[in-house]
Amino acid sequence: MSQFINAKETLVTEAIDGMLRHAGGRLARLDGYPHIKVVIRNDWDRSKVALVSGGGSGHEPSHAGFVGQGMLTAAVCGEVFASPSVDAVLAGILAVTGKAGCLLIVKNYTGDRLNFGLAAERARAYGLNVNMVIVDDDIALPDLPQARGVAGTLFVHKIAGALADQGAELDVVTAAARKAIGGMASIGMSLDSCTVPGNAKDNRIPDGKAELGLGIHGEPGVEQVDFSGASGAVEMVVERLAASIGPGPHVALVNNLGSATPLEMSVLVEELIKSRIGDQIRWVIGPAPLMTSLDMRGFSVSLLPVGKAEEMALIAPVACAAWPGCHAVGKIDTVPLPDGLAPIAPMPSRHEGRRAFIENCCHVFIEAEDDLNALDLKSGDGDTGSTLATAARALIGALDRLPLADITQLYRAIGLELSQTMGGSSGVLLAIFFAAAGDASGNGEDTIGALSSALKRVQEVGGAKKGDRTMVDALGPAIDALAGGLLEAATAARGGADATAAIGKAGAGRASYIASVNLIGHNDPGAEAVARLFEHLAG
Amino acid sequence: MSQFINAKETLVTEAIDGMLRHAGGRLARLDGYPHIKVVIRNDWDRSKVALVSGGGSGHEPSHAGFVGQGMLTAAVCGEVFASPSVDAVLAGILAVTGKAGCLLIVKNYTGDRLNFGLAAERARAYGLNVNMVIVDDDIALPDLPQARGVAGTLFVHKIAGALADQGAELDVVTAAARKAIGGMASIGMSLDSCTVPGNAKDNRIPDGKAELGLGIHGEPGVEQVDFSGASGAVEMVVERLAASIGPGPHVALVNNLGSATPLEMSVLVEELIKSRIGDQIRWVIGPAPLMTSLDMRGFSVSLLPVGKAEEMALIAPVACAAWPGCHAVGKIDTVPLPDGLAPIAPMPSRHEGRRAFIENCCHVFIEAEDDLNALDLKSGDGDTGSTLATAARALIGALDRLPLADITQLYRAIGLELSQTMGGSSGVLLAIFFAAAGDASGNGEDTIGALSSALKRVQEVGGAKKGDRTMVDALGPAIDALAGGLLEAATAARGGADATAAIGKAGAGRASYIASVNLIGHNDPGAEAVARLFEHLAG
Repeated sequence: MSQFINAKETLVTEAIDGMLRHAGGRLARLDGYPHIKVVIRNDWDRSKVALVSGGGSGHEPSHAGFVGQGMLTAAVCGEVFASPSVDAVLAGILAVTGKAGCLLIVKNYTGDRLNFGLAAERARAYGLNVNMVIVDDDIALPDLPQARGVAGTLFVHKIAGALADQGAELDVVTAAARKAIGGMASIGMSLDSCTVPGNAKDNRIPDGKAELGLGIHGEPGVEQVDFSGASGAVEMVVERLAASIGPGPHVALVNNLGSATPLEMSVLVEELIKSRIGDQIRWVIGPAPLMTSLDMRGFSVSLLPVGKAEEMALIAPVACAAWPGCHAVGKIDTVPLPDGLAPIAPMPSRHEGRRAFIENCCHVFIEAEDDLNALDLKSGDGDTGSTLATAARALIGALDRLPLADITQLYRAIGLELSQTMGGSSGVLLAIFFAAAGDASGNGEDTIGALSSALKRVQEVGGAKKGDRTMVDALGPAIDALAGGLLEAATAARGGADATAAIGKAGAGRASYIASVNLIGHNDPGAEAVARLFEHLAG
Repeated sequence: MSQFINAKETLVTEAIDGMLRHAGGRLARLDGYPHIKVVIRNDWDRSKVALVSGGGSGHEPSHAGFVGQGMLTAAVCGEVFASPSVDAVLAGILAVTGKAGCLLIVKNYTGDRLNFGLAAERARAYGLNVNMVIVDDDIALPDLPQARGVAGTLFVHKIAGALADQGAELDVVTAAARKAIGGMASIGMSLDSCTVPGNAKDNRIPDGKAELGLGIHGEPGVEQVDFSGASGAVEMVVERLAASIGPGPHVALVNNLGSATPLEMSVLVEELIKSRIGDQIRWVIGPAPLMTSLDMRGFSVSLLPVGKAEEMALIAPVACAAWPGCHAVGKIDTVPLPDGLAPIAPMPSRHEGRRAFIENCCHVFIEAEDDLNALDLKSGDGDTGSTLATAARALIGALDRLPLADITQLYRAIGLELSQTMGGSSGVLLAIFFAAAGDASGNGEDTIGALSSALKRVQEVGGAKKGDRTMVDALGPAIDALAGGLLEAATAARGGADATAAIGKAGAGRASYIASVNLIGHNDPGAEAVARLFEHLAG
């Protein structure tokens, strides 16, 4: 699998630069490429507690995406899935830490613990006040003494970030972070492994299986389980989470591990809310990519018990675009369907002249059925004749319920009949034609004006111009000539229809996909139908 | 490839419901499931121009994700890649349109044009003022008369949305939309096709190839091209775009078609800004999933020429979480590395007693090298002895530059030496131990106090508790007993070290991955080293 990168050696620095290009002056990086990759707030005055996090890259938007007012002060980025160096972490600490001190938020991986830990020592040797918390929210391996740190880390960033932004002291911020870490639980599931840049993909998950209990570095999940759809997936995840959480309200962070689609993620949220722990979930963060594992097709759910203090911290505004907000879970608001969907049937009325005229027109199409089908076979699927004839027969059958005495209502009613009885694009276009004619007639236009307006509307919607080898090529000239009488209109329609035989490139409709050689020499069937109608009416 | 869905028939309605669960009362849906899937603003008063868009699903967050103040008023959602019905569109129009009228924003696909077009006619029959614009921003097929509508549609949503929100009249909103449509150009590239729910995936793009000029419905791109990395990919896209745009400033909308990673997307932005049209790109929207094609691993770039009016409309705030904002492109801010990364070398000083003591300790480890390696072979990679001996030799070599006369500085200096000369986790942990001892000593603690504080810090960072089968099992008891003299400390260390032989489950470090049967009966090499040190000092 190719990837949109240049080289794995430059991937992280190029990506950071790409992010900084449009950070609007709010973010900067330390001038330490390639070894020191640290993103810091550019609007930071060191008067508050600094929050520094980071770790290997490949988890974007974590961590650099969460640098900004109300969340992190600095993110220390390693290479993909590799801990940043002690020097890099120290550079991050020194760059942002003032008298109020600094909290390091570290995910529980040996490399991160050690490198952040030693950097903290070196910073303390300069007299800086540095605390460190270790996030270990993964419940996939309940008997492992060192649970991994995964997406629950975002809870810590947000809660500590809100407190720090409000001016809380380091010990208060640290205590809130520790409390959050103590209460949270996370677990993930995936349908496919991730692609580490420069490595071949490990296609270890067979079709019909999922991995439950994933870390975020491509390592296999704790178990492979049978996958039976979103509902079963959430049930398994909920079973594990339910065993880890206490009573009371929780916030759920629904994390896209990489390439689950937004549709899938929303279905998962819906299943989670409908699950047996759904009534404990009062707030949702996401669904969104928050702590990803490159392109892994999976998700994770993190739960945190929430009191008033946590709620206030989680909903506090932030300046990071990657933070999706924390939203209350509520009922689904539904609004009744508006009146007017079922069109009001027009009051039938009599008008013998119009009745005869319509019948007359319809018979033209019925009689032309086979000819038009044969023409359509040259450039389409051979059904133009049948489509028109079927609609014509249906319209004759509907004559008794048409408002024949009211021309405006009659146009509209014909449009409605066609939209209900005539299939395909042409049915919709003719329905639009008559509806628009009704509009124009209602606005006081005469027959020619109404037909002109209608054709204009059909062209707007359908996109066909003159010369595009459609019925417009006959109908346009016919309407234009109609002021001179039906004979002139018929002549114009015939001229337009015959001209389509020379058009080797259809500009709209299905014939636009047909090669020129199959079109030349044959009239467009729609244009031909129009010509025959006017010729009959003139004759 | 499995997907996190339940059934394709319920996918879209479940996903919409999942979204509405946490919309915070700002969104609702019409009560028309399953056929009518319309998401509307719940905070809408019909006094302004309504904006209605939509189309097939599978492009999330388009379109429902952009319903909210400042963008769409309603989104009409079809099934995946299928146009919504005329009734559904009409329901959407009727639900939100008041006297100010309604603008339909439609992507240029036949089904959408016709269904939105006919719905508009039916709405007009109720006296509503409905305009419609067709977005055709795709430049992949320059000679096709009907260019597709792709991600540039978002420009229209945003610009029209801002004007409508400010109270502009329908004709003004429509004109601005048409102006934007006339100026914009989009093109996409993908490395892999998308997976349509219920269909097998079409693996048509071979490794090393990319498709250029994609639509958003899984149809093949206009051409398969050789793929040589992010730089070449952007060059091809830029070549097409450059031919379509005029001079002057533009905004670039960088769209993730589905499952390109955030790292890749940021690299693509960086390449775009560095490209030959980079100096024309003054604003960037994204990179973000905006108009996706399910899980397609690709991206698209849309360009729009921007004057003051467009800029104001694009940066106006909105209430839709899916909108990533429009940000000015600027230089990358870099901040010099902080002082203090290169630790200040301590001033050497003499203290013969301490010098002899350190040398004495170091020789213990040098002599124990083979024994400790042999022990480590039982539970690790057999290098504990060599790691310690190498560090010990290095420390002896450093004695002349150590600040032997100042115990606080000496602790710190030893930590620094170890961090630079001793590899692996144990090197970092010992560096932390001595740095923390220096801290404690600087705070006035005596030797035992300093060592106790140091051990506590190492345990915090390393995570090892007593009984975890690490050097802590010997070092902890030894320090605790040190007040009683070196002999008591040595006895305690030996007891602790020997007790590790009965611990069948390591709680930290690499041995935590080793099966019990391989651990029982052998002392932990780190604990053994500590015991030998104290025994030697006591002897």
